[in-house]
Amino acid sequence: MDEREKLAWEPVKTEHIVQDRWIDFRKTEFRMPDGSLLGPFYNYSRRSYVVIIASDEAGRFLCVRQYRQGIGRVTTEFPAGGIEPGGGSGQDVAPDFITQPDEGADEEEALEAAVRELREETGYVSDCWSHVITAPSDATISDNYAHIFRAKNCRKAGGQELDDSEYLHVELKSPEQIDGLIREGGFQQIVHMLGWMLVKGE
Amino acid sequence: MDEREKLAWEPVKTEHIVQDRWIDFRKTEFRMPDGSLLGPFYNYSRRSYVVIIASDEAGRFLCVRQYRQGIGRVTTEFPAGGIEPGGGSGQDVAPDFITQPDEGADEEEALEAAVRELREETGYVSDCWSHVITAPSDATISDNYAHIFRAKNCRKAGGQELDDSEYLHVELKSPEQIDGLIREGGFQQIVHMLGWMLVKGE
Repeated sequence: MDEREKLAWEPVKTEHIVQDRWIDFRKTEFRMPDGSLLGPFYNYSRRSYVVIIASDEAGRFLCVRQYRQGIGRVTTEFPAGGIEPGGGSGQDVAPDFITQPDEGADEEEALEAAVRELREETGYVSDCWSHVITAPSDATISDNYAHIFRAKNCRKAGGQELDDSEYLHVELKSPEQIDGLIREGGFQQIVHMLGWMLVKGE
Repeated sequence: MDEREKLAWEPVKTEHIVQDRWIDFRKTEFRMPDGSLLGPFYNYSRRSYVVIIASDEAGRFLCVRQYRQGIGRVTTEFPAGGIEPGGGSGQDVAPDFITQPDEGADEEEALEAAVRELREETGYVSDCWSHVITAPSDATISDNYAHIFRAKNCRKAGGQELDDSEYLHVELKSPEQIDGLIREGGFQQIVHMLGWMLVKGE
């Protein structure tokens, strides 16, 4: 960072309020650039995750409908899932605590997770993968990252293999249907919308 | 919701872990669609917020550089700020608890906050406002909303008037510069990127 900017805050005291295999939720007091102390500010670590914008050979996009407990509603979105350290995406190998040294997933681990997540959530596979963008899930409050991938020419290779907390329906949508859902508020994941805007019309 | 889908989870027990004027952070156990109990799942309420994609009469976009404690880095992004119940955006009138009945901001309150936030963060004003999109900030874990607005033909009308926690620099960027920052990972707010993709080229 450019020191001349004098914009960075210095953490002075951090309290870990919840720290388990799902989240490290913290409360921090900071020293501001002018030397004053300010707080509390809350932030957290969770698993980084992948989002897969996948289309079949007819150009229809694989969407999933599932319950999202944040907003308490069933949403339509693209397949997505958390990345475990080491490249896995299942819950079985989760560590005791989400916050580990070097816990960030690299692009190779993220791609492995994306291939597996698409297969498990939808039963589809692809031979044509590309990386769209990786960006902080929410720079304001968390330090996990969203890795967005594009998978073309997907074909059905089996059934779903879902985790305990996954109850979801697969639906095929045309690009026009996805645009319509976004316009009407029926497609509510911001990260997925960003990915869509970056790949549509390609 | 379509009952036939049987996708919704039923909250069985909720514990409010932190509940103050900034956040209501909860831990919830749910009954899954098959009747099994699963948890913990974490979610939270925070203030909904506005993002303003503002350009001056020369077509340059108003960006701010500031420290984002979630990722612990200085970011370049568009002006943005939280919405207080009643339409304000300052910290002075914040309620004791973030979770209030009917706390969601309507579009009129959001627009008022956007006009004020642009003025306070940058000193610029506009006579040409439009609404771009409103969407959940993160449907997976929170129930606050991002309201994205577009402001054209902005002109300087004064200096900054910043809150205690706001240390930010204003920078004017061309559309090409913003595209470049996004491509290079220098523009890291996903909601802001989505807004940019929705308005660019208009």
